[in-house]
Amino acid sequence: MRIGVLWGALVFAFALPALSEDGPTFADLGRCELERGGVIEDCRVGYRTVGELNADRSNAILFPTWFSGSSADLAAMVGPNFLDPERYFVIVVDALGNGVSSSPSNSETQSGDGFPEITIGDMVESQHRLITEVLGLDRLHAVVGISMGGMQTFEWAVRYPGFMRRVVPITGSPRLAAYDIALWHAYRQLLDLAEECECDEAGKAMQGLVLLVGRTPEYHARESDRSEVLATIDDAATQRAMEKGRSDDLGSQALAMMTHDVSRPYGDDIDRAAAVVQADMLVVVGVDDHIVTPGPALSFAESIGGKRLVLQGDCGHGAPTCSAAEMNQAIALFLNGDVPTASTN
Amino acid sequence: MRIGVLWGALVFAFALPALSEDGPTFADLGRCELERGGVIEDCRVGYRTVGELNADRSNAILFPTWFSGSSADLAAMVGPNFLDPERYFVIVVDALGNGVSSSPSNSETQSGDGFPEITIGDMVESQHRLITEVLGLDRLHAVVGISMGGMQTFEWAVRYPGFMRRVVPITGSPRLAAYDIALWHAYRQLLDLAEECECDEAGKAMQGLVLLVGRTPEYHARESDRSEVLATIDDAATQRAMEKGRSDDLGSQALAMMTHDVSRPYGDDIDRAAAVVQADMLVVVGVDDHIVTPGPALSFAESIGGKRLVLQGDCGHGAPTCSAAEMNQAIALFLNGDVPTASTN
Repeated sequence: MRIGVLWGALVFAFALPALSEDGPTFADLGRCELERGGVIEDCRVGYRTVGELNADRSNAILFPTWFSGSSADLAAMVGPNFLDPERYFVIVVDALGNGVSSSPSNSETQSGDGFPEITIGDMVESQHRLITEVLGLDRLHAVVGISMGGMQTFEWAVRYPGFMRRVVPITGSPRLAAYDIALWHAYRQLLDLAEECECDEAGKAMQGLVLLVGRTPEYHARESDRSEVLATIDDAATQRAMEKGRSDDLGSQALAMMTHDVSRPYGDDIDRAAAVVQADMLVVVGVDDHIVTPGPALSFAESIGGKRLVLQGDCGHGAPTCSAAEMNQAIALFLNGDVPTASTN
Repeated sequence: MRIGVLWGALVFAFALPALSEDGPTFADLGRCELERGGVIEDCRVGYRTVGELNADRSNAILFPTWFSGSSADLAAMVGPNFLDPERYFVIVVDALGNGVSSSPSNSETQSGDGFPEITIGDMVESQHRLITEVLGLDRLHAVVGISMGGMQTFEWAVRYPGFMRRVVPITGSPRLAAYDIALWHAYRQLLDLAEECECDEAGKAMQGLVLLVGRTPEYHARESDRSEVLATIDDAATQRAMEKGRSDDLGSQALAMMTHDVSRPYGDDIDRAAAVVQADMLVVVGVDDHIVTPGPALSFAESIGGKRLVLQGDCGHGAPTCSAAEMNQAIALFLNGDVPTASTN
């Protein structure tokens, strides 16, 4: 198991086994020109679909991956309670840099440090090309994403305002707050250290950091045993030793989050960016999230007059898991209004 | 400037210049036998006093140092608003391992890794010997401490129940919660990395960790500039490169906090330990402190029926600084009742 998987598991507890042993489908996009000036040669995007496209091609939902997640992880979430595949055609896309789509770890000609810097916007561009050029769709019912996936949904809402009717960022952000930037900076330092030093300390420090920011102290006071917490961290660090290429992938996606800012084309004016949005938005945050702090998402929702769902409780960034029933019901109500189930279609 | 000083400055903003250029006074205690079985040879404790001992020797307050702090730092806090030296004889003591009192960095015969493991209880023992054997006092009016100093006050309350009338732990703890233990574990890994690797990453990761846990995200959203936060961290890391011996001192005190538990002699039963307390206690915590989480201190206060002051706001572990006026007033009221000012003495 890899450290990125642990991150996903600890933060989301969503890293369920894939529904099947089948791999993703790949879309070959040729060259992907990037926001920061680079190019991905032989650009490929992995994806999986769940459910069926309806007759008028109006029920497609895009569900991009969170940090370190794969379409296998996310497809396992889709079911009667979340993005019901009896109703929707769910397209689960591997974000660039996740080790499935084009990434430092799998590029034949641009591996490791040779891989160009990517942005959240580049992830969205690759998904837009997948949907229009490969799947032949000219609209989506919705874009729904969690954490880094939620950052991609904000980017979709500003970059392609008329392309979808609904946007649901869950614990996402239109641009990271200073605190969040500091977090990913520290994380990237530890990634580099884990690569460079032949030692256990970097992995242990990283597991400690994940624990400290992933859940609230109140959660740990209830759920963590003070006599066992160190062994838990050390075991996780030992068992999940880094794979060389995986570290480059994680660093690439972490940097994409740090530079994420939907307002950049609008003179860093977040209200001007928000004014572009046409889709209805339901902005879901965790009240005490210390990985993606909720302030920027809530401000954006206020700016567009969108709906907000603030998940209470002490689960921190894990609020979508701990409050799944409440969240799933709200999202279903928000998405379902004008899309009949397949059986009544 | 050293990384430990930065920690103190960022967390407390108390690291003011010392009142004078004079060094501390030292008490030579001979051998200090330690809780974990070791011995400090040529054991020395540094201290400073502010104010005057009154005629019936009833106005002495002990004020032990916080993590990485020195008696110079803390003596600068004492004044009309805090532990008024017109009323009290304040004894500011350097905790073992702080680089002034006996420490890995200054021991001639037990330097570095040769220094024995110390506990919060050992710090208290050395202070009790200073007060009784060197200063010739058989009682204190109060013990007041902040953060690791607050941990020492809990230890005093349980270890020497009849020795003082008042105890004020400020953002302290009778034993660390699992979250807090994980924090110091991560911190110690980064200390080790900073020693071992010839690289900048460990220092940057440590500064990032301090920023992430030292204040709340809400505080940073208001006070930190997202375009400057990385430069702030990196500059701090570069300017405050570790001194070899300083790292051993910080690691020694961090380990003392991790193993701190006033209930150990009472079968790990915190209520049995609390039942021993005779002093009146005013337990001060920060409502959203992510360095010393307030749960254990608040539970202890409840167990003894003591007073509690929960400092509100978004300053995290810096609450005693941000809420200084409220806190100082409450502490003065709690301490002053039966001690007249010198002028009316």
